[in-house]
Amino acid sequence: MPQLGLLRGRAWTVLLGQLRRPPGSVCIRAVRSHSQGQKYLQVAEALFASQLKPHQEKSNFIIKTPKGTRDLSPQQMVVREKILDVIVSCFKRHGAKGLDTPAFELKEMLTEKYGEDSGLIYDLKDQGGELLSLRYDLTVPFARYLAMNKVKKMKRYHVGKVWRRESPTKVQGRYREFYQCDFDIAGQFDPMIPDAECLKIMCEILSGLQLGDFLIKVNDRRILDGIFAVCGVPESKFHAICSSVDKLDKISWKDVRHEMVVKKGLAPEVADQIGDYVQCHGGISLVEQMFQDPRLSQNKQVLEGLGDLKLLFEYLTLFGVAEKVSFDLSLARGLDYYTGVIYEAVLLQTPVHAKEEPLNVGSVAAGGRYDGLVGMFDPRGHKVPCVGLSIGVERIFSILEQRMKTFGEKIRTTETQVFVATPQKNFLQERLKLIAELWDAGIKAELMYKNNPKLLPQLHYCENMGIPLVVITGEQELKEGVITLRSVASREEVAIKRENLVAEIQKRLSES
Amino acid sequence: MPQLGLLRGRAWTVLLGQLRRPPGSVCIRAVRSHSQGQKYLQVAEALFASQLKPHQEKSNFIIKTPKGTRDLSPQQMVVREKILDVIVSCFKRHGAKGLDTPAFELKEMLTEKYGEDSGLIYDLKDQGGELLSLRYDLTVPFARYLAMNKVKKMKRYHVGKVWRRESPTKVQGRYREFYQCDFDIAGQFDPMIPDAECLKIMCEILSGLQLGDFLIKVNDRRILDGIFAVCGVPESKFHAICSSVDKLDKISWKDVRHEMVVKKGLAPEVADQIGDYVQCHGGISLVEQMFQDPRLSQNKQVLEGLGDLKLLFEYLTLFGVAEKVSFDLSLARGLDYYTGVIYEAVLLQTPVHAKEEPLNVGSVAAGGRYDGLVGMFDPRGHKVPCVGLSIGVERIFSILEQRMKTFGEKIRTTETQVFVATPQKNFLQERLKLIAELWDAGIKAELMYKNNPKLLPQLHYCENMGIPLVVITGEQELKEGVITLRSVASREEVAIKRENLVAEIQKRLSES
Repeated sequence: MPQLGLLRGRAWTVLLGQLRRPPGSVCIRAVRSHSQGQKYLQVAEALFASQLKPHQEKSNFIIKTPKGTRDLSPQQMVVREKILDVIVSCFKRHGAKGLDTPAFELKEMLTEKYGEDSGLIYDLKDQGGELLSLRYDLTVPFARYLAMNKVKKMKRYHVGKVWRRESPTKVQGRYREFYQCDFDIAGQFDPMIPDAECLKIMCEILSGLQLGDFLIKVNDRRILDGIFAVCGVPESKFHAICSSVDKLDKISWKDVRHEMVVKKGLAPEVADQIGDYVQCHGGISLVEQMFQDPRLSQNKQVLEGLGDLKLLFEYLTLFGVAEKVSFDLSLARGLDYYTGVIYEAVLLQTPVHAKEEPLNVGSVAAGGRYDGLVGMFDPRGHKVPCVGLSIGVERIFSILEQRMKTFGEKIRTTETQVFVATPQKNFLQERLKLIAELWDAGIKAELMYKNNPKLLPQLHYCENMGIPLVVITGEQELKEGVITLRSVASREEVAIKRENLVAEIQKRLSES
Repeated sequence: MPQLGLLRGRAWTVLLGQLRRPPGSVCIRAVRSHSQGQKYLQVAEALFASQLKPHQEKSNFIIKTPKGTRDLSPQQMVVREKILDVIVSCFKRHGAKGLDTPAFELKEMLTEKYGEDSGLIYDLKDQGGELLSLRYDLTVPFARYLAMNKVKKMKRYHVGKVWRRESPTKVQGRYREFYQCDFDIAGQFDPMIPDAECLKIMCEILSGLQLGDFLIKVNDRRILDGIFAVCGVPESKFHAICSSVDKLDKISWKDVRHEMVVKKGLAPEVADQIGDYVQCHGGISLVEQMFQDPRLSQNKQVLEGLGDLKLLFEYLTLFGVAEKVSFDLSLARGLDYYTGVIYEAVLLQTPVHAKEEPLNVGSVAAGGRYDGLVGMFDPRGHKVPCVGLSIGVERIFSILEQRMKTFGEKIRTTETQVFVATPQKNFLQERLKLIAELWDAGIKAELMYKNNPKLLPQLHYCENMGIPLVVITGEQELKEGVITLRSVASREEVAIKRENLVAEIQKRLSES
């Protein structure tokens, strides 16, 4: 009769409600204790037993989180907090201010910002009033904030969840709810200084997280558009071809070419010309080489893009990170709103054999320049140029979590410094007085929620949880006006005068 | 022609799209720059000018956040971070682990948990797949987590947003998206020890936030139910009458009585009996007095509740917070899931005149015992007793923000320690090398994103932003291999050897 545990309080009416439902359906009710409930309980039990067979009652009822979402356990929270701490510290090191926006926006704020991905936006049910959608990224809300408050200049960071209804056919490990950590610089400045800072930040964070080797691919939307133009792509197909190029990090050029020609109706010779360009990657020398290209050097947009990239590499050299950055003509980035330089950081897996190429294990950060987005929100179309980056926490999280498992690292999930214990009965009052004193002094302390706990479980708990100090009180201590202070690691015990306890603990903690 | 700022790239097609729409309607499109776009631009401008009058274009378009939500500006973020820091530090001081759950849950997880308030739940649109709702609090997701993972014992905190579709007729200042900070203790323990810790935590946090005087009202659901029973309320009306009692902190007993009798059909003499009880409040002495009440002392539930409250007051005395707690029989708490002790903290406004009563300026924290909630999720109904508390950040935020405005406190929105400046032209390269060195040493630093900034605006920026140190490089410094280090407050300047710069800055910062 497992379900009978539920039958309390208004058990009677709950039960009647349940009996009226079709078998296999679920009824969960908020139940409160009433003394009257008790008398109905036996009746209810009898009735219940006659109606339902075991294992039949709650069969449809599966407790789970929604698809593509998860809880983070205390262990996982510690890992995520560490990641966010490295990221936010870096953002603050670069002078960014914090900002927060609501989890949902008016639906119209998000429309026509994400191109093909718009279908992944979660809409809220129309319950009367406004039509709302969960935010898809932190960039569009930032642009909306700037336009709404007429802010012309701002360096801000934002750490928050975003939601995307990725289809279940997508690769495992893709979440529908995930954290993004964004840093953006809005305002009219001299070219490429903020852009270079964004790349420097990505390098600092990826180095700081000790994720191994990484590479930042850089390209420029204007160069890509210029290439399409000089190769003879009709302007109406720019977008479709751009999104084919975007797949070059997942599928081969042969397959991308096939998609361009067969699916998107591009002339084969045009596709081949594109292929010659987009398979190029290199450093500053490739920028110089492209400047010399007879066809590209005729295109104003390409020249603007190349000029900016040249400047970018100059600044990256001064920042000491140029060798981490590669000019990669295959980088396209999915989102609609980019207008200039774009970049994406990928982790490189050190190969087992020296001759193998480092393996790309996926993108962990990305961003670019979007000079038109704020203007889309402004009633007068006033533009605020922006450049920024977004760190994807989930993939970094998986890597660090996996590494901790591999190395069997034990993670402390609490920060407790002192445990208040007793070996004797009837010492709850003394323990409560003691622990309140510790809390009031700002010391992190715990005790067992038992009137008369045994000593051994109390000490075991400290060892399991990594609590460094135990304060022990008992008859002997009370008589002598002292407290025993025990170090969990060394098992050493010393008697401390009761009135010196807080000071002694604070001294010990500051030394460790 | 303000909207022409938008006309870039595929301006032609965008424009045509716009002209086909009814006047006053809005068209926002993702637009990317294409060189071809340039040649269409003049044509487009002309066409556009002939079609639309100024101020007519985007008249329907209002940029705003959804009703009941808001952005937090950098200034506000600093205030909120300070509040959350006090709260989370306290939770950690009491040994709590962190936990996170998704923003939305399967709709069925939230149904029948919130009584009358269920209508305030935000549902997501059915876009195929599961039916989802935004979480309404952090308690139900916690109970779901415990049941799902078969966790029998846990002390956790959770800081996160929750969403409630409060009707717009509610008092101003009520938000539909707001932060909750929850601390809960799950598990079977000796009575009232965890409950007393929850009240101690509320006291520590409210004292720590320096919000002025406060009072924690305590009651017990079993006592309230027992009172209803002995007064002769039919059990079917318990809930309705309980929710009338809950209004006693907002409306007078006369009005509550009227609601009970006229709206809820309670016999007047029954209402009067309830009135005699629920208007009582006091300390431990009121608990003793209730024990003596000839009718209540016959009721098992009341006796259980009173026994627990007596123990609670004993523990609160040991914790040194008993004088902050009042046994208040009018406290009912709205939510369905409470089963035992309940509590609510209210701030007291110190009266202007000594003879006035302190004014209740509203509830800022609340909680209670809910022993049945986890069992509602468990397929076998296995119970896990829980007790917890929730701090409402928004009201605390308003009070602190108001106070800061009143006292004209200036809030630093960045943590920048050093600004890298130059008085001369052509020093960008030197500044970039310098600032990278600072960043790499973990020093928080900024510079102006200009090739050739003037010195005065650079120094003004430091004064405005509260940046304590300025590093100045110029021709003189470069020649002598030094850097000028300037204290913004004292305007003192000293020359530092270039190679000692980082060490000197770190020394200065550690001293301040």
